[in-house]
Amino acid sequence: MITEDNSFPITERTRLKRLPARGAYDAQTIYDILDAGRICHIGFVSDGAPVVIPTGYARVDDRLYVHGSAASRMLKTLAQGADVCVTVTLLDGLVLARSAFHSSMNYRSVVVFGKATLVEDRDEKIAALTAFTEHVLRGRWPEVRRVTEQELKATSVLRLPLTEASAKVRTGPPKDEEEDYALPIWAGVLPLVTGFGEPISDPRLETALPLPASVKQAIGKTRSADER
Amino acid sequence: MITEDNSFPITERTRLKRLPARGAYDAQTIYDILDAGRICHIGFVSDGAPVVIPTGYARVDDRLYVHGSAASRMLKTLAQGADVCVTVTLLDGLVLARSAFHSSMNYRSVVVFGKATLVEDRDEKIAALTAFTEHVLRGRWPEVRRVTEQELKATSVLRLPLTEASAKVRTGPPKDEEEDYALPIWAGVLPLVTGFGEPISDPRLETALPLPASVKQAIGKTRSADER
Repeated sequence: MITEDNSFPITERTRLKRLPARGAYDAQTIYDILDAGRICHIGFVSDGAPVVIPTGYARVDDRLYVHGSAASRMLKTLAQGADVCVTVTLLDGLVLARSAFHSSMNYRSVVVFGKATLVEDRDEKIAALTAFTEHVLRGRWPEVRRVTEQELKATSVLRLPLTEASAKVRTGPPKDEEEDYALPIWAGVLPLVTGFGEPISDPRLETALPLPASVKQAIGKTRSADER
Repeated sequence: MITEDNSFPITERTRLKRLPARGAYDAQTIYDILDAGRICHIGFVSDGAPVVIPTGYARVDDRLYVHGSAASRMLKTLAQGADVCVTVTLLDGLVLARSAFHSSMNYRSVVVFGKATLVEDRDEKIAALTAFTEHVLRGRWPEVRRVTEQELKATSVLRLPLTEASAKVRTGPPKDEEEDYALPIWAGVLPLVTGFGEPISDPRLETALPLPASVKQAIGKTRSADER
């Protein structure tokens, strides 16, 4: 549960032992990182050994959703109430220090612990599917063909309550050894930037359709159909 | 061990059960993805529950290395021979299908299973530190101040042999339901592109140093000092 100051309680496993100054437990920081990411890495234990799988996700309020085929081995395992750890990492830059030892990366990451539950409620399931589609590309849900009953059945959605979570953030310039600042070695940050390339229309588009609003908005263009 | 055709043997846990056509087990595909990534997500079991942590890494031949503070709880756990799962994921594009159900992402991922070992040999440790620095930014190792004995002691390096690994790759346009191709819905791929922003010099640079060769090469510029 989120505490009165809108933070997650610090538990033994979310408390950062090393470099605690990089830790953040307030809900807004955690939600912002989750909303900015595109994929999570979900960890679970299978036959006693760890398994880490990348997958899409979406946040709705204080719940994280993942989904997949109802036939997926991972989702079946998780739906049985297994412990999971979901981690989302955004890489913001290369931190180039004067020594290899202090070279690092700027990043924002969130680690969520908990147990996932299969979503059985139809409305919650549709809300989660909406959130997945909108999380990938805002504005896409109303553009796509409506989901069918068969598709709903073939999709498993899992809910992970955001109750035990922490963020870890590194920003800013390198932190070098005091005596190294005098060395004639360039140091600084090389930012990493992710953007979109030119949209690639499906070769099977049967008519010359203009780019949809969702794509135009994402690529920051407002080209009208006749400008294409 | 890599087999005669330069592929990893398919084990029960690396064999893709779903969408097996997306699986790849040849060493070159796996190495290329590992070399193109910047961070991995490393999973291990702590008190019976999964933990997934993002961290840097580097590949040298058929070995993967991760490193961290000798005081790190994670590294201490892993060095005791715990099972680990290391996953590297590269996101290449948003696959915008005509239905939410078939919407997806283009990606390349590698999952490695194994047990990590603490690197005790000094030369192997230095080679791994070199590889970490070069993996973050090619050409950086000769530019930074040499590593000290104290730094070597304070750094733990773990080796994970690449013996049980698989890749999963999705490329290309959406695959829609046959009857959906006639719908007047734009479909295609929105590529994701990662690049570098303008380098940010450390405010504590004591003299106006030109950008080093490593950074210039990365940002694709060959500016001379007087062009700055």
